[in-house]
Amino acid sequence: MSARRKIRMGMVGGGPGSMIGPIHRMAARLDGEIELVCGVFSSDMEKSRQTAEACYLDSTRTYSSYPQMIAEEAALPEGERMDFVAVVTPNHLHFPVAELALKNGFHVLSDKPATLNMEEAQRLHVVVRETGLCYGLTHTYAGYPMIKQARHMVAGGQLGAVRKVLVEYPQGWLSGADVEENSKQAQWRLDPAQAGVSSCVGDIGSHAAHLSEYVCGDVITEIYADLNSVVAGRQMDDDATVLMRFRQGARGVLVASQICAGEENTLKIRVYGDRGGLEWTHSDANTLLYKPLDKPVEVLRAGGAGLCDLAAANCRTPAGHPEGYLEAFANHYRNFAAQIRARLESREPDAVALDVPNIVDALRGMRFIEGTVKASTGDSRWYTLPLIAGIE
Amino acid sequence: MSARRKIRMGMVGGGPGSMIGPIHRMAARLDGEIELVCGVFSSDMEKSRQTAEACYLDSTRTYSSYPQMIAEEAALPEGERMDFVAVVTPNHLHFPVAELALKNGFHVLSDKPATLNMEEAQRLHVVVRETGLCYGLTHTYAGYPMIKQARHMVAGGQLGAVRKVLVEYPQGWLSGADVEENSKQAQWRLDPAQAGVSSCVGDIGSHAAHLSEYVCGDVITEIYADLNSVVAGRQMDDDATVLMRFRQGARGVLVASQICAGEENTLKIRVYGDRGGLEWTHSDANTLLYKPLDKPVEVLRAGGAGLCDLAAANCRTPAGHPEGYLEAFANHYRNFAAQIRARLESREPDAVALDVPNIVDALRGMRFIEGTVKASTGDSRWYTLPLIAGIE
Amino acid sequence: MSARRKIRMGMVGGGPGSMIGPIHRMAARLDGEIELVCGVFSSDMEKSRQTAEACYLDSTRTYSSYPQMIAEEAALPEGERMDFVAVVTPNHLHFPVAELALKNGFHVLSDKPATLNMEEAQRLHVVVRETGLCYGLTHTYAGYPMIKQARHMVAGGQLGAVRKVLVEYPQGWLSGADVEENSKQAQWRLDPAQAGVSSCVGDIGSHAAHLSEYVCGDVITEIYADLNSVVAGRQMDDDATVLMRFRQGARGVLVASQICAGEENTLKIRVYGDRGGLEWTHSDANTLLYKPLDKPVEVLRAGGAGLCDLAAANCRTPAGHPEGYLEAFANHYRNFAAQIRARLESREPDAVALDVPNIVDALRGMRFIEGTVKASTGDSRWYTLPLIAGIE
Amino acid sequence: MSARRKIRMGMVGGGPGSMIGPIHRMAARLDGEIELVCGVFSSDMEKSRQTAEACYLDSTRTYSSYPQMIAEEAALPEGERMDFVAVVTPNHLHFPVAELALKNGFHVLSDKPATLNMEEAQRLHVVVRETGLCYGLTHTYAGYPMIKQARHMVAGGQLGAVRKVLVEYPQGWLSGADVEENSKQAQWRLDPAQAGVSSCVGDIGSHAAHLSEYVCGDVITEIYADLNSVVAGRQMDDDATVLMRFRQGARGVLVASQICAGEENTLKIRVYGDRGGLEWTHSDANTLLYKPLDKPVEVLRAGGAGLCDLAAANCRTPAGHPEGYLEAFANHYRNFAAQIRARLESREPDAVALDVPNIVDALRGMRFIEGTVKASTGDSRWYTLPLIAGIE
Repeated sequence: MSARRKIRMGMVGGGPGSMIGPIHRMAARLDGEIELVCGVFSSDMEKSRQTAEACYLDSTRTYSSYPQMIAEEAALPEGERMDFVAVVTPNHLHFPVAELALKNGFHVLSDKPATLNMEEAQRLHVVVRETGLCYGLTHTYAGYPMIKQARHMVAGGQLGAVRKVLVEYPQGWLSGADVEENSKQAQWRLDPAQAGVSSCVGDIGSHAAHLSEYVCGDVITEIYADLNSVVAGRQMDDDATVLMRFRQGARGVLVASQICAGEENTLKIRVYGDRGGLEWTHSDANTLLYKPLDKPVEVLRAGGAGLCDLAAANCRTPAGHPEGYLEAFANHYRNFAAQIRARLESREPDAVALDVPNIVDALRGMRFIEGTVKASTGDSRWYTLPLIAGIE
Repeated sequence: MSARRKIRMGMVGGGPGSMIGPIHRMAARLDGEIELVCGVFSSDMEKSRQTAEACYLDSTRTYSSYPQMIAEEAALPEGERMDFVAVVTPNHLHFPVAELALKNGFHVLSDKPATLNMEEAQRLHVVVRETGLCYGLTHTYAGYPMIKQARHMVAGGQLGAVRKVLVEYPQGWLSGADVEENSKQAQWRLDPAQAGVSSCVGDIGSHAAHLSEYVCGDVITEIYADLNSVVAGRQMDDDATVLMRFRQGARGVLVASQICAGEENTLKIRVYGDRGGLEWTHSDANTLLYKPLDKPVEVLRAGGAGLCDLAAANCRTPAGHPEGYLEAFANHYRNFAAQIRARLESREPDAVALDVPNIVDALRGMRFIEGTVKASTGDSRWYTLPLIAGIE
Repeated sequence: MSARRKIRMGMVGGGPGSMIGPIHRMAARLDGEIELVCGVFSSDMEKSRQTAEACYLDSTRTYSSYPQMIAEEAALPEGERMDFVAVVTPNHLHFPVAELALKNGFHVLSDKPATLNMEEAQRLHVVVRETGLCYGLTHTYAGYPMIKQARHMVAGGQLGAVRKVLVEYPQGWLSGADVEENSKQAQWRLDPAQAGVSSCVGDIGSHAAHLSEYVCGDVITEIYADLNSVVAGRQMDDDATVLMRFRQGARGVLVASQICAGEENTLKIRVYGDRGGLEWTHSDANTLLYKPLDKPVEVLRAGGAGLCDLAAANCRTPAGHPEGYLEAFANHYRNFAAQIRARLESREPDAVALDVPNIVDALRGMRFIEGTVKASTGDSRWYTLPLIAGIE
Repeated sequence: MSARRKIRMGMVGGGPGSMIGPIHRMAARLDGEIELVCGVFSSDMEKSRQTAEACYLDSTRTYSSYPQMIAEEAALPEGERMDFVAVVTPNHLHFPVAELALKNGFHVLSDKPATLNMEEAQRLHVVVRETGLCYGLTHTYAGYPMIKQARHMVAGGQLGAVRKVLVEYPQGWLSGADVEENSKQAQWRLDPAQAGVSSCVGDIGSHAAHLSEYVCGDVITEIYADLNSVVAGRQMDDDATVLMRFRQGARGVLVASQICAGEENTLKIRVYGDRGGLEWTHSDANTLLYKPLDKPVEVLRAGGAGLCDLAAANCRTPAGHPEGYLEAFANHYRNFAAQIRARLESREPDAVALDVPNIVDALRGMRFIEGTVKASTGDSRWYTLPLIAGIE
């Protein structure tokens, strides 16, 4: 056996009926750097065992609760116990699981949003800082190589000063009035106790906001928000428009909606500076359009010519062999595993490893979600997002 | 000689250096229904003559001013004088030319926006009503057959109740700080005396607003507007975001910008109801995507199968022979000429002839432009557009 | 009246039920350089009069036959008579009309293919040479500005030595077994007496062959052809594949078919040299993709940055205002009119005026059509196209 | 430990510098059904160990040769030894490895083409038949769900009788004259000793041929082939056009080329019947266009509405979450593993498990490759592919 070994993952959530759980597991497997060694996939032990068996997981490491898992894994010898916990539950469990895992010495890779609210996020921040452990957040779309290329080009000044950001995330799957009855996915996302203060912004708007900050290398500081519950009877927003101002002066428009009937999942971002623009669309994720002012548009391609190191390091195949959602997700898993490996090997992680959304993104994301809800109620004016202690 | 004859057009504006003048003339020519018989193409008689000569126009009917043209044409026998005036000047002349023409018995087809401000628009409304003459407004994009098809499908209930409208009009041509120095087009559009209270909303946002009302068969009643002068030193907006509420309950987001570097002229509209969505993009103008909820998207095509009568009547070629901007423009000219011809023949115009933006669109357009400027200043709140006497 | 005047056109063909007649007339009108002064639109005088009236044409110049038209027009004073004849009949009349017109001093602009067979084409060549008059052929697709740009880039060596040409023209409109019964367009195209030896190659394959020669600035010298009558009962080909070798060494594949059910009219050409490739597709006619080897693809756009003079001269609107089929057609008309005008003004036509398919293209086109039929029968081997006396 | 276990894979080939080896390993990992347990990744033991270590593979099961691996694995207890061998070497080793593995009781999943020539393929056929073991061939593109949907729709008669197949596979990576010097991938593919009789047809044309047979549910019976060595100095074809006739009467055109400068890997197939057409393009792999005759095109989407069971079973994510090349590849691995698992569990594999290219595809593929070389030399006529004993 080689001294080198796979990074060991425990999972909380992702049992039968979960949409995102299998996606996390596929993403974790793809590059062969991570091994699922234990889990609690459901609060129902029978369901949890079903998932464990489907994953060919040792039944002795299928646990009945996350506190049990964390306790028992912590008790295992270093050469056996899990290295990190993947948190793939509904939102309300993200924080308690992450907190307990970190406090017991386990790194955490969590689905987004990081917590149920800003207060939890700030407590999580403290824990991450105090433990010094790795914390990652799976804002999937930042895992795409052409998004990394976009960030590189903005940072390198190829667009000049950024003036305008257009980001949109139209979905149609919550169009039907009866979708809550038939879909487990819809149920918890429309339940404030499980989802938090926002459905649409929490679920997809937060992805769009993160993407705009990531690509621009900037921070949203002020917003005007218009959140709507379009389908009658919903307690939470299923549609949102947010006007944004960024620290460095750019303006943005974010449209997220779950009631755009007939739309799938076509997140799209466009960024314009005084010297050119960029455009990326999820449905053509391997392409980045670069639009220099008064010159022909250039079509940059994943795996192709002219990519920066970070983008190239997040491609697995030559240009023309499309990579997709699972590969973007897998980039976060692989890069997060590389952070952990660097620790195991007592060295600094490289830039590729560090390029995973982290606790700072977690804080900003929760600030954004809560901010849109606040901005959208009462006076309905421009709202200055509060500074976050410790990071700003 | 047949008793039937071409409809006779006089033109004001569109001399050397004009962008839109030649487009109006090509549009007027395409279908062979209209004949340019006279004009005053520039305030400089020498320039006006250049254009007249380039149009092979009789020099005796090239005039030195629009009052002269209107007076002399009115003095010609009925069998010779022009039937209508095409107004293609900068905005500040739209109203005085249109008013004088109408008062002297000439129909008017005007470039948009109809007037410099709402007060002029209301005066124009009175004149149109009192003279009973034909008044048309060249909101080009409503001339596209697939837009007419979209309107038909919304009206027919194929989307169910409309909930959401996304309309965007990104351009990049005003990105450069020095464009005003080099472009006559930029100069007058950024000069309030010639353009009115708004550059971006007046020039392109008003097209987007009209398109959303036309497709939805609905009226914008409330707005929240964020207008910006992004390029330093400009007196007027070059970027605008407008949130909209429609009378029948739909919400909308309108993004118009002239500083999206690298963008051409890609007006795009998406409409979502509870049963499906529609999408049309100017860069692929012969296609309309119909997105029924939970069924495959259908690709409707100009000249192709499944079009309504109005759409089909505005196509000239079989599917696969792309028609473009000039054909959309020509549809308005041809249909407006058919209105005039119906009068000449003492019969009612048909639905195709009547499908030209008119004085009601003119009023709503000016209300929208002024409304965005008002809504964008001061308190920055939602703003209820005032009712327009006589049409609402 | 200015001494300058419109160029005067007479038309043969294009009466009620014609598809291409109205297109020729719209193309002739668009730029205001040409005036329809006379015509014989149908062999049935009543139908001819209908079209004349719809065109607001003087009834005294609606003729009962093309010999009559040519004779009577020739008898008119120079200041009145037509300058050229537009031939828009079914194929079998192209030659006799063109020949008689030329022999009587009229320039000719003809729909394609130029004649019914090669023997006629050679006779036409003699007449054109002997009369010295202008002869143009409306291979529409060569009228698109981005095709002109492609030709320019190949000629300028941007692709290096051309190695491979892929050209395809799939249509579906002849898929149905009963289309001949219901469509006048289908009837004559599938009747050898009217269409010539080939339907599919004659009607659309010849466009594709011309386009490949035009873009490459090269000549097809050898072919292997596989022509099929896919729908039972047809005397003529409705499907064709032709392998091609060009004089300068490139190889090509041409696919033309009228039985590709569901296809519209999507002519597409791709050219590859040792340093890069080009791609143009009719459904996105305002775009030319330039694919330099090992660099990002560039998107060249009609009306946009980086176009050669010839391409720019064939655009009417800024980038983002799509021009289409009628504008491409109109480019040929406008440029042909400019040839005639140069003669009227006793000067050499410029490069833009001369850029209209001519008698050399006519000869090569007929050689190609006949060649594919010959190559496709009997031994079915590679076939060397015979040299054409006088041009090669 | 659950009684159920992962399927155990040994790998031959895929060491440092291999393009396809890592792809096979990612594909094998994605769904968590397969475990890499042993391998010989290179003929150089040091390189082999590098790959083994990168895969966290037990060093005791990294072998120095495939005969050694097969012998030693065969000697392991049933509960430990590998279940199947993945063959990812250059072509010349496909047969000897597969043959030895099968003869020693191991199932085989091989990269394509199956063997170096037809004679080997027939010997392989005998071994597969005699051992009764599972043999799979990774024609990747048949792994895409929308290709499975296409096959289903053709089989179900939605297109009517298939008339025409257009399949193209343009690449540009062998455009440069010096690519052989710099690319290991190019070197062996252009060396007949390692690649077989054809480069272009063997490498990519065979994929296109398989795809056309798979989608149509039909067999290519006659071909006309034009193979070229475009870049000077090459012994083998780098460009090919093949006309095809299918058993049930359809005609086809296959274009494969490695010298289309600027192209990536855009395999595309279009199939036309008398009632409609289908189109699938690798660059938009999650979309299948269905073109019913005289009706609007429908856009079928991976993960979306209206898919057949087989297509749906090969999607992992909801519509709008793009899956790509690795997922298509993984479908073959997962389905092949399901075949093996059915054997382990003494039951019949289901339709999804059986949907992996097999020895019949292997035979047809080799017949096609050899056939194109034969057809392209000498007389250059249509060539009837010989019947294959035992399968036809």
